[in-house]
Amino acid sequence: MSPKITTELLKQLRQVMKSPKYVQEPVQAYIVPSGDAHQSEYIAPCDCRRAFISGFDGSAGTAIVTEQHAAMWTDGRYFLQAAHQMDNNWTLMKMGLKDTPTQEDWLVSVLPEGSKVGVDPFIIPADQWKRMSKALRSAGHDLVPVKENLIDTIWTDCPQRPCKPLITLDLSYTGVSWRDKIVALRSKMAERKVLWFVVTALDEVAWLFNLRGSDVEYNPVFFAYAVIGMNTIRLFIDGDRMMDPAVREHLQLDSTLEPEFKIQVMPYGSILSELQALGAGLSPKEKVWLSDKASYALTEAIPKAYRYLTPYTPICIAKAVKNASETEGMRRAHIKDAVALCELFNWLEKEVPKGTVTEIIAADKAEEFRSQQKDFVELSFATISSTGPNGAIIHYKPVPETNRTLSVNEIYLLDSGAQYKDGTTDVTRTMHFGTPSAYEKECFTYVLKGHIAVSAAIFPNGTKGHLLDSFARSALWDCGLDYLHGTGHGVGSFLNVHEGPCGISYKTFADEPLEAGMVVSDEPGYYEDGSFGIRIENVVLVIPAETKYNFKNRGSLTFEPLTLVPIQTKMIDVNLLTQKECDWVNDYHQKCREVIGAELERQGRHEALRWLIQETEPLVRVQ
Amino acid sequence: MSPKITTELLKQLRQVMKSPKYVQEPVQAYIVPSGDAHQSEYIAPCDCRRAFISGFDGSAGTAIVTEQHAAMWTDGRYFLQAAHQMDNNWTLMKMGLKDTPTQEDWLVSVLPEGSKVGVDPFIIPADQWKRMSKALRSAGHDLVPVKENLIDTIWTDCPQRPCKPLITLDLSYTGVSWRDKIVALRSKMAERKVLWFVVTALDEVAWLFNLRGSDVEYNPVFFAYAVIGMNTIRLFIDGDRMMDPAVREHLQLDSTLEPEFKIQVMPYGSILSELQALGAGLSPKEKVWLSDKASYALTEAIPKAYRYLTPYTPICIAKAVKNASETEGMRRAHIKDAVALCELFNWLEKEVPKGTVTEIIAADKAEEFRSQQKDFVELSFATISSTGPNGAIIHYKPVPETNRTLSVNEIYLLDSGAQYKDGTTDVTRTMHFGTPSAYEKECFTYVLKGHIAVSAAIFPNGTKGHLLDSFARSALWDCGLDYLHGTGHGVGSFLNVHEGPCGISYKTFADEPLEAGMVVSDEPGYYEDGSFGIRIENVVLVIPAETKYNFKNRGSLTFEPLTLVPIQTKMIDVNLLTQKECDWVNDYHQKCREVIGAELERQGRHEALRWLIQETEPLVRVQ
Repeated sequence: MSPKITTELLKQLRQVMKSPKYVQEPVQAYIVPSGDAHQSEYIAPCDCRRAFISGFDGSAGTAIVTEQHAAMWTDGRYFLQAAHQMDNNWTLMKMGLKDTPTQEDWLVSVLPEGSKVGVDPFIIPADQWKRMSKALRSAGHDLVPVKENLIDTIWTDCPQRPCKPLITLDLSYTGVSWRDKIVALRSKMAERKVLWFVVTALDEVAWLFNLRGSDVEYNPVFFAYAVIGMNTIRLFIDGDRMMDPAVREHLQLDSTLEPEFKIQVMPYGSILSELQALGAGLSPKEKVWLSDKASYALTEAIPKAYRYLTPYTPICIAKAVKNASETEGMRRAHIKDAVALCELFNWLEKEVPKGTVTEIIAADKAEEFRSQQKDFVELSFATISSTGPNGAIIHYKPVPETNRTLSVNEIYLLDSGAQYKDGTTDVTRTMHFGTPSAYEKECFTYVLKGHIAVSAAIFPNGTKGHLLDSFARSALWDCGLDYLHGTGHGVGSFLNVHEGPCGISYKTFADEPLEAGMVVSDEPGYYEDGSFGIRIENVVLVIPAETKYNFKNRGSLTFEPLTLVPIQTKMIDVNLLTQKECDWVNDYHQKCREVIGAELERQGRHEALRWLIQETEPLVRVQ
Repeated sequence: MSPKITTELLKQLRQVMKSPKYVQEPVQAYIVPSGDAHQSEYIAPCDCRRAFISGFDGSAGTAIVTEQHAAMWTDGRYFLQAAHQMDNNWTLMKMGLKDTPTQEDWLVSVLPEGSKVGVDPFIIPADQWKRMSKALRSAGHDLVPVKENLIDTIWTDCPQRPCKPLITLDLSYTGVSWRDKIVALRSKMAERKVLWFVVTALDEVAWLFNLRGSDVEYNPVFFAYAVIGMNTIRLFIDGDRMMDPAVREHLQLDSTLEPEFKIQVMPYGSILSELQALGAGLSPKEKVWLSDKASYALTEAIPKAYRYLTPYTPICIAKAVKNASETEGMRRAHIKDAVALCELFNWLEKEVPKGTVTEIIAADKAEEFRSQQKDFVELSFATISSTGPNGAIIHYKPVPETNRTLSVNEIYLLDSGAQYKDGTTDVTRTMHFGTPSAYEKECFTYVLKGHIAVSAAIFPNGTKGHLLDSFARSALWDCGLDYLHGTGHGVGSFLNVHEGPCGISYKTFADEPLEAGMVVSDEPGYYEDGSFGIRIENVVLVIPAETKYNFKNRGSLTFEPLTLVPIQTKMIDVNLLTQKECDWVNDYHQKCREVIGAELERQGRHEALRWLIQETEPLVRVQ
């Protein structure tokens, strides 16, 4: 990787920072955050402005350019990558290290008195604006919104904003019609006494209308906003996608509907002016509900007294709790996904010893097997296919420069998943195609014990996921080991592979309690820099648990694994397992055999079936 | 318990709420919080204003009186008690229930437009003022500080503020002189670039100067503030306590000292005017450090631009990490405490079958045995001595109306502790003096498993206590059981039995990481309303742990029990324990035998020694 040369670009940016064409007054600093106008985790190429200006294309980072400096804040996952991708114009600010200043502190230390700091108000979330604005103001500077994105003004070959066709999902997939979702949303609005709800997150728009798109890679979403009133529905979306007869039919655009279900379609770009008009016309007690992560621009459109902000929207919470149709869809998707992985692992067992399989070839082969399955749409994230030392890079993605060949001497870690029309998958398996060392088996077994501790945990209704995180670490902690990432994230139903409001992590506290129907991942790991990486990940469904007693009638919950892919028994040191843990593995493998075995049989995949049978032989614990 | 008749008092209060003698403009509502001017958990009788006006004397509650209404907010521990103690003038607001309005929402719903809401600015913490003031302002009302406490104006027989003699602690107890503590504090201040530090919490003043008092029951503290500058020390304290030669000597008041260690003694009541003078004279960049829980009055004395507020002060954090002298003192205190409890339990085993021992008698006997020990000062909290159904009332304290007789048919729970000059104790044991039922043993054993899971946990340096909370619940959760309180709190060293900034609870997230030298309690429980309560509590010291590996060189921690009192084996269902848990109990009892046995021997307490030997017989697990 050679760094991007940014001297000329920075010169141009510094010119427009002073140009009366774009700014009312010159700005002495300009902030370029990672996100798009919807605060998406994955973004479209046209929104990769921070990567364009700096060369650094990791998923997290914020660039700030002043007249003299250019600085990039990113976290530990990306220190190496950012250093490689950026030229000498840039200073890397390593977040999480003690001596690294915050963006605010740094700005205060380098700016001349009374400076203006510019930012695109559509890109910065309202809560971040507030924090930064306050810090700058207290030091005598001003954070100012710059309407036109200054990167876009110098990005001459900026790709077009994608505007791809939509997919309509019928009731067999969604379980609930968009009309009923609107009714439920309005009842939540009535409860909180708000009259308007602004949908800003892309997956929330998609979920609400039972539509999917492909504007952003891996995430089946499309660029749109929606504003739901008690009697009106406005959908802000561009292109001729609304001309598609299937979409018109699905949204009943041409039917005579009760007025409160009539969807007004408006241009994507008109959201701000429409919200401003709405904001200007509000009478006292008319509140507008927005996520507190909505952009500063949209939040400001509503006068402060009329705003109702929450960290999680009612759509976010409703979307997380899968209904029976969605749950069945998720089960089907995971069965198909397991078939593809059985094929892959069977193929790898044969091919790896020949020395011809690279990380990229293995990833491609995984995609090939997945794409053979019904209703396959695309991958759900960039496949992490990593062998040996690459496995220790937690967010690794093989590229030609780093591509290693799989061998019988190294641990192989595959973290991959797909979007099917009936569900989203995300699974990690760690394999050895030769003979693992005792130490590798020991570490793998601790990770497995953590995986089981979460998966088999029983906990009261109302428990937040972060309270389960330590269960995943206990076996590692006992030996002085740990892993530096969370244990689980919410998973969408043919939607984003990472979604809120639940998860399993020591890092969050504001997660919503786990509820039956929620879907999360369970993925503890262990990583030894320069040597190997281990992770065991299943997607699991929250289900009611039967318990001997029932304190305060609260009821209990536990998890059911949706992922049904064998866990390599060769990697397990059986004597480190308790009998209960051993039984868990055997029960899990029995279920893999039954469910996935039947599907492999049905699909006539006999060789993969033989592999499955062999990989699911029961463990025997020597007492 | 008959309720307090408050009709006349409320009439008087409503008069002074309008009297120009006390308020600049009439206030339409007056808030009476629980606390004192130092945000203490335990308060002196003169500060029990909320109890005076309402009759409700639980430890937590806020009263609000308007022209028409009087309402009391309290939490689930006190619903019953508050309902009993208050007359019909009062409405009970049950916090934590879904339909209970917040104080702000309730005020907004009952107040006429443009109302003034008064509160004593010395009693309300700055962070609470901020929240409430904002909510009221956005509804068109004003929160206003009322200088004179309006309750005090009508409380004709209000007790005097205590002003008891001080105890000086020499280096053998404290390990560090007050001068060295000042030096360390000033270095923390220099790190954060603050020039002044205001000490507002009573235990922080006591710790800093190596002094103790007895102004507040159970807490060896005294009413005082301190303001530490880089070159000055001001101690705000009343009475002739500074005339005591031992105190003068200890503080070197009459010595010729370097000026930066010369303590200026000032009247307790002059803190506000002194801080205001300080605040008025600050030049730019001169910051003043306060706890964000300091009173609104003191916080406001410093202009906003000069304030540096943190949730935990450097004194709070330094105080939590016990040094070698303090640790040794804590060990000694716990040995003496265990001797007293062995005497007590031996006595109970003989006396309970006679049917003459009540909860109050047992509590008094416990105090009697403790008071025989060297350096005993007082109890560290009101003894919870509860049998049968009373055990299920988590914050029970026996009074004549509720006093039950201990019997061989009920579970007995004793949660008690003491202040010794060398340390503070807090221990809970749950006993049966007859034959426990299988169900009682089962529940006890789950609680024990939780206690062991925390006590034996190994975790990386930097782990926050709240991440260990679920370990204490896991065995209960597996059977659908739980307990509705946290698992542990910080414990002071001859100081408050509850102290920050660490703890073990699902409720907090902002706790500071555990560090070697910190002392916390480990006290899971199980409570069955109307039937019994179980709790097993040890005070434990955070110590470094030896582990097989050492990930990222972070090092690991674990706990060492300081409490060494037998856990009644009669209550344990051994077959529910793993071999590891069984070994833990046996090792723990072996240590009790050795350490406490030697001390009982030394004190010639032979009968109690025989009891100890018998109670620490090893468990045998049938495989």
